[in-house]
Amino acid sequence: MRTTPPPPSSPTSPSPPESGPPGACDVLVVGAGVIGLAVAWRAARRGLRVTVVAPDATPGAASGVAAGMLTPAGEAVFGEEALMRFGALSRDRYPAFVEELERDSGRHAGYRTGGTLQVAYDTDDLARLSELAELQARLGLPAERLTGRACRRLEPMLAPSVRGGVLAPDDHSVDPRLLTAALAAAARRRGAGRVRDRAARLLTSGGRAAGVLLAGGGELRAGQVVLAAGVWTPEIGGLPDGAVPPLRPVKGQLLRLRTPSGAAPVVTRTVRGLVRGTPVYLVPRDSGEVVVGATQEEMGADLNPTAGGVWELLRDAHTLVPGVGELEIAEICVGLRPGSPGNAPLLGPTALPGLHLAVGHFRHGVLFTPATGDALADVLAGEGLPAYARPFAAARGSDGSEARQWT
Amino acid sequence: MRTTPPPPSSPTSPSPPESGPPGACDVLVVGAGVIGLAVAWRAARRGLRVTVVAPDATPGAASGVAAGMLTPAGEAVFGEEALMRFGALSRDRYPAFVEELERDSGRHAGYRTGGTLQVAYDTDDLARLSELAELQARLGLPAERLTGRACRRLEPMLAPSVRGGVLAPDDHSVDPRLLTAALAAAARRRGAGRVRDRAARLLTSGGRAAGVLLAGGGELRAGQVVLAAGVWTPEIGGLPDGAVPPLRPVKGQLLRLRTPSGAAPVVTRTVRGLVRGTPVYLVPRDSGEVVVGATQEEMGADLNPTAGGVWELLRDAHTLVPGVGELEIAEICVGLRPGSPGNAPLLGPTALPGLHLAVGHFRHGVLFTPATGDALADVLAGEGLPAYARPFAAARGSDGSEARQWT
Repeated sequence: MRTTPPPPSSPTSPSPPESGPPGACDVLVVGAGVIGLAVAWRAARRGLRVTVVAPDATPGAASGVAAGMLTPAGEAVFGEEALMRFGALSRDRYPAFVEELERDSGRHAGYRTGGTLQVAYDTDDLARLSELAELQARLGLPAERLTGRACRRLEPMLAPSVRGGVLAPDDHSVDPRLLTAALAAAARRRGAGRVRDRAARLLTSGGRAAGVLLAGGGELRAGQVVLAAGVWTPEIGGLPDGAVPPLRPVKGQLLRLRTPSGAAPVVTRTVRGLVRGTPVYLVPRDSGEVVVGATQEEMGADLNPTAGGVWELLRDAHTLVPGVGELEIAEICVGLRPGSPGNAPLLGPTALPGLHLAVGHFRHGVLFTPATGDALADVLAGEGLPAYARPFAAARGSDGSEARQWT
Repeated sequence: MRTTPPPPSSPTSPSPPESGPPGACDVLVVGAGVIGLAVAWRAARRGLRVTVVAPDATPGAASGVAAGMLTPAGEAVFGEEALMRFGALSRDRYPAFVEELERDSGRHAGYRTGGTLQVAYDTDDLARLSELAELQARLGLPAERLTGRACRRLEPMLAPSVRGGVLAPDDHSVDPRLLTAALAAAARRRGAGRVRDRAARLLTSGGRAAGVLLAGGGELRAGQVVLAAGVWTPEIGGLPDGAVPPLRPVKGQLLRLRTPSGAAPVVTRTVRGLVRGTPVYLVPRDSGEVVVGATQEEMGADLNPTAGGVWELLRDAHTLVPGVGELEIAEICVGLRPGSPGNAPLLGPTALPGLHLAVGHFRHGVLFTPATGDALADVLAGEGLPAYARPFAAARGSDGSEARQWT
């Protein structure tokens, strides 16, 4: 299923010590999830001196939990066409992005092709899926309607009761944990520094962002600062009033299941289902892991898995693919998606010169990673926010209008 | 709900160093689950010099996983009346056993009274429950039939669909993890030694059991040896042919759930249910923990929780008590019950003089702990197997007939 062979290349630049004395640099990226690391890597590739600052691990950080579906078509929601177009653009950049990433990092990113099969359990589910397919067609996203039997030809372990489906042949998946590790390695090999501490406070100087104060003491100075710390971004002290939107944690529970040794895979591509109106997905990995997700709960920063959440995931996954019952439970994960007021990302310059955002990716952080990395690299290189990212400009100042303010 | 107040007593004997040089002792107990530790403590109370030998932790050991129901009535199965009588006797010893244990150990054993409510979900379940109630009545186990409404008066969070139930007022519960810790402390305070290693091989001398060879090297010598190592007992080398029955691991998955702070308990006593023919139970603890169990799977020594096992437990618990969905998942546990060929324990002397068994307790180890501890202490003190334990004599030689041989 993989399209990219094991990367043969040696590093394209010598690896500097991972967290040597950073001194003043061009760009300081706050956050080491897929977004922060992609921004750092893409900026470093442009020759900028970059430092990434983030603690070693943050419980609930979305990049370590996400399933990694690259499915703008599957995510299509009425009224979110702009998001879907941004997602389709980012998805289309994935093959080249992964190729460069694996070459720069010397690591696999866990990218799998094979498309995504969306299936419906009952007639109401099928009606909803048909509406979605029409929307996808209108937006030019390829999607092929299939009978229940045709779905089972593609995925033989689907339940006989599955009524029909839609194949999105270009919607693939990536393993966010492998992707994160590859991005970190690629950024390092491209010369980016890494400081394993929490950015406690933004520093300003002469009306510009100038760096951060570290929780562990000391400062990091830089000409430009990118905030990409997910739902924790607003906790950084000293942010100018209204520069950063309120971000709410949207709790997601998901399961990492394991195929017993010798058993056949239960699904061979991403399967998204509607089961009596409830969405559920199964994302397979080369390792035999199957990720089943996800709840979507407005519960604040709660990291506890619940009996109800896990039961609903297992119930719906089992309804679509009864063989799921034989899989082993490797992990129950809880992540906090960073939801902005409009559930869309905020990208690029803020009203404070030198301060940029790459936040609010909500459910789409992994999908949006290539486009976000490239857009921010453009900004950091002085080229401004590219057209495709302007619907999500952190400050409207980037297209000449009044700066957006969050109060 | 607790009947025993916090034990005020100081230790009844000075604590020796936990694992000082054991030298030769009277009794060597192989195994440190509830059975091995109860035997050690009860024998030490009789003035015998006892050493317990077992590794620090054994993944899948039943005592760390068991729910701790003391429900011979709930367990009533046609054809197992002898087991049920032994269970009722052991259950009736629990209050005094716990009182002595808490006094000797200075620790709580997590004993809760309040009885057990058995409930039926549909009319078929109710018919099965009625048959069980008749059997219980015939065996003299108190059991009061209740309407669905009466069940909900006792346990208000039961689903409205529950059809009826049976209250077993004398069937209580204990926390096996607290019980294990208390037994270990009590045995130590009563002078028992503890060697944290695996007994690799039985040693014999002059046609008698004489001690064990340790996996880490060295020997432990004793006049009598008790094997109480659960399903791992037959792995000890050097056992005389036919002395120990084959023991098969019977996999059980269960869930430890946690009541969110401030929330009301979902059940106030043990609730056992039949849901469309499938048994499920919920056992509450003073700490707010609720144990939901258990699968019963003949899968060999497999310690992997499965999606199907967890899903069925959550489904059935949620059907009986919908509020379970709000509980947090603290732990998914997998234990291996030691099943003998007849699913009954094997107690007391074997054909090899000085070698005794306390194995094969299957699903009933915690329930059978007081009776087994007392029976083996009688044997070790030279009084022979007491009458109540003779149906489970490891060797029929104990009542004069031919020794039982396992081949």
